[in-house]
Amino acid sequence: MKFHLEKANPSSKARTGCIDTNNGSFETPAFMPVATRGTIRGLTAGQVREAGAGILLVNLFHLWLRPGEKIIREAGGISSFMGWNGPVLADSGGYQIYSLSGSVKIREEGAFFQSPYDGRKVFLSPEDVVSVGSGMGIDLIMVLDHLVSPDSPPDVLREARDRTLRWARRSLDVAPPDGALFGIVQGGCDTDARKWSAETLSFMTGREGQTFSGFGIGGLGIGESFEVRNRIVGETLDVLPREKPRYLMGIGYPEDLLAGIAQGVDLFDCVLPTRNGRNGMVFTSKGRLLIRNARFQEEDSPLDDGCSCAACKSYSRAYIHHLFRNGEMLGPILNTIHNLTYYLDLMQQSRIEIRQGTFNAWAQQKMDSLQQTEREQS
Amino acid sequence: MKFHLEKANPSSKARTGCIDTNNGSFETPAFMPVATRGTIRGLTAGQVREAGAGILLVNLFHLWLRPGEKIIREAGGISSFMGWNGPVLADSGGYQIYSLSGSVKIREEGAFFQSPYDGRKVFLSPEDVVSVGSGMGIDLIMVLDHLVSPDSPPDVLREARDRTLRWARRSLDVAPPDGALFGIVQGGCDTDARKWSAETLSFMTGREGQTFSGFGIGGLGIGESFEVRNRIVGETLDVLPREKPRYLMGIGYPEDLLAGIAQGVDLFDCVLPTRNGRNGMVFTSKGRLLIRNARFQEEDSPLDDGCSCAACKSYSRAYIHHLFRNGEMLGPILNTIHNLTYYLDLMQQSRIEIRQGTFNAWAQQKMDSLQQTEREQS
Repeated sequence: MKFHLEKANPSSKARTGCIDTNNGSFETPAFMPVATRGTIRGLTAGQVREAGAGILLVNLFHLWLRPGEKIIREAGGISSFMGWNGPVLADSGGYQIYSLSGSVKIREEGAFFQSPYDGRKVFLSPEDVVSVGSGMGIDLIMVLDHLVSPDSPPDVLREARDRTLRWARRSLDVAPPDGALFGIVQGGCDTDARKWSAETLSFMTGREGQTFSGFGIGGLGIGESFEVRNRIVGETLDVLPREKPRYLMGIGYPEDLLAGIAQGVDLFDCVLPTRNGRNGMVFTSKGRLLIRNARFQEEDSPLDDGCSCAACKSYSRAYIHHLFRNGEMLGPILNTIHNLTYYLDLMQQSRIEIRQGTFNAWAQQKMDSLQQTEREQS
Repeated sequence: MKFHLEKANPSSKARTGCIDTNNGSFETPAFMPVATRGTIRGLTAGQVREAGAGILLVNLFHLWLRPGEKIIREAGGISSFMGWNGPVLADSGGYQIYSLSGSVKIREEGAFFQSPYDGRKVFLSPEDVVSVGSGMGIDLIMVLDHLVSPDSPPDVLREARDRTLRWARRSLDVAPPDGALFGIVQGGCDTDARKWSAETLSFMTGREGQTFSGFGIGGLGIGESFEVRNRIVGETLDVLPREKPRYLMGIGYPEDLLAGIAQGVDLFDCVLPTRNGRNGMVFTSKGRLLIRNARFQEEDSPLDDGCSCAACKSYSRAYIHHLFRNGEMLGPILNTIHNLTYYLDLMQQSRIEIRQGTFNAWAQQKMDSLQQTEREQS
């Protein structure tokens, strides 16, 4: 993996760049649609590309359990297996340590899970994540981290943070020379803990001199306020090396992306455009709407007037309302196409504004208008 | 609607033609994918077109209840509402008289249904079907017929057949000059009843001299053997006028389509490629397969080696197996794309063989090979 930092906006920390991988290149800031089990629900790879995606996120933990590393490796890697043929980043299983915590046992050597598929006991170590990720042909591998609830007692938080760093070091030790491994900054909402985690990871080297190719900021988006998150992201990015990509994990709403970009974030992922789209929520330039609402029953206009996605080009709100009302698969599909396009257009426009040196004013105006429409609608 | 009978195969009754409608033209023999509620489940209109479809079938009864005639009319008609922008045929509700028979009351004036959506009592007359179909901009409207189980007592069969003819006459009386209305031949498995029904409809004229633009052969595919159906289709087609399109309703497997074409059928529809595809059944040149079967877990080849559909171009059997195993939407979508392509390719190849005068030999070989692979697999 190579990261070319292209241009920083003179009046802000926002920046554009390009990441080259063995499976192709993409521009940053980038939003990664979430293909947990190797598929963006309901979309062909062609539709995802047409929506503007340059890189996808998959979940290593889920793919490791099903269909398993062997099948993916023999298919020529995950990118080829899923017909995507572009760059792929894999989340490690750290989030599952948090979300499946009731059935997870953490030991220093790694995590003991109960498989959500068949209840079987499985063990995943930091070294396993690197090895499985390489075997699956993942372009950007996130290390296994120990994620706990930010409301945990201080000693639990400290233990998880320290273990995350020890695991990060073990991961670096086995990082293959051609693989891109990302460290993950933890530390809850505590400034010092975050800075210490970021600093330690920045200077960390493996047994053969390996360093991280980039850094994730983890453990956010699980309850903290917009302001607190923004502060932590800013403090963390101040410490992380400028020349490596920074990835704000699992965030968020359009306004969160703009705030992140303004701070210098390069990569994002979130299930919002896809999951919420499947449930009927549509992101538009005039705010969000719930397509099941009866007021859309007779609206002959597209989801978003200014949008040129495949859904807005051919279908009306009335039709998509009809599809949702009847539980027809095409409803969630069209919403997903539209929402992804909305997110990916936002990133593309951000890159343009950064290059023009107009990002800050544009983003501020965009955020104000988003907040205003939300207020009007609520 | 205009039907141009292009070429009859000298050595068989198979024939090619072209049907022009206000929404475009398509070649016959044609297979119509089933979009009951105005959507081929899981596919965009573009994907359906790419699979090779020239005309779609919708269900007037369902669309009349939801979203209703008004919304569809105001959207510019069903073809525009569903983003298809091509020809559409509507089945009337006759099949629902059969399938919902427990809650349907038939009177001479029409059918009293209980809405499957909200239980409300609704009434549909033969005249309503023509008027609603016109209002929705349907290109080919099937009359309302009274379909009963072929196992019904003789007096019930006779009553339904006679009522179907009286309803057909009332439909013709209100047929708009620019609309294409198809009569439906009934008569169970009785040769005389079928011939009488076909003959009566052939010579039927409405109040202002209207005649049917084409004819459906209904009431088949609900229990009779392949041989009995073939005999009835042949006997019926011998009576129907050569210069008008004939539509074998709701049939069937690939071998049934070939048998129908050999007898001179021009139009087909069936839920098999879509419904069975969603449930995991795949039609291939080497027979059917069930993609959930564990033997496909590691198969890196496409569903069908000779197929050039979007599913076979980019995805392996192992990947689609993985999608089905995890209940991922893309599994049913890819199978639907493939199966529709398989059916529509079969129709295209049939048209080529008819034009070349080689249809009979080709179809016989194809049927033998399909039957043989089925035997080997069962």
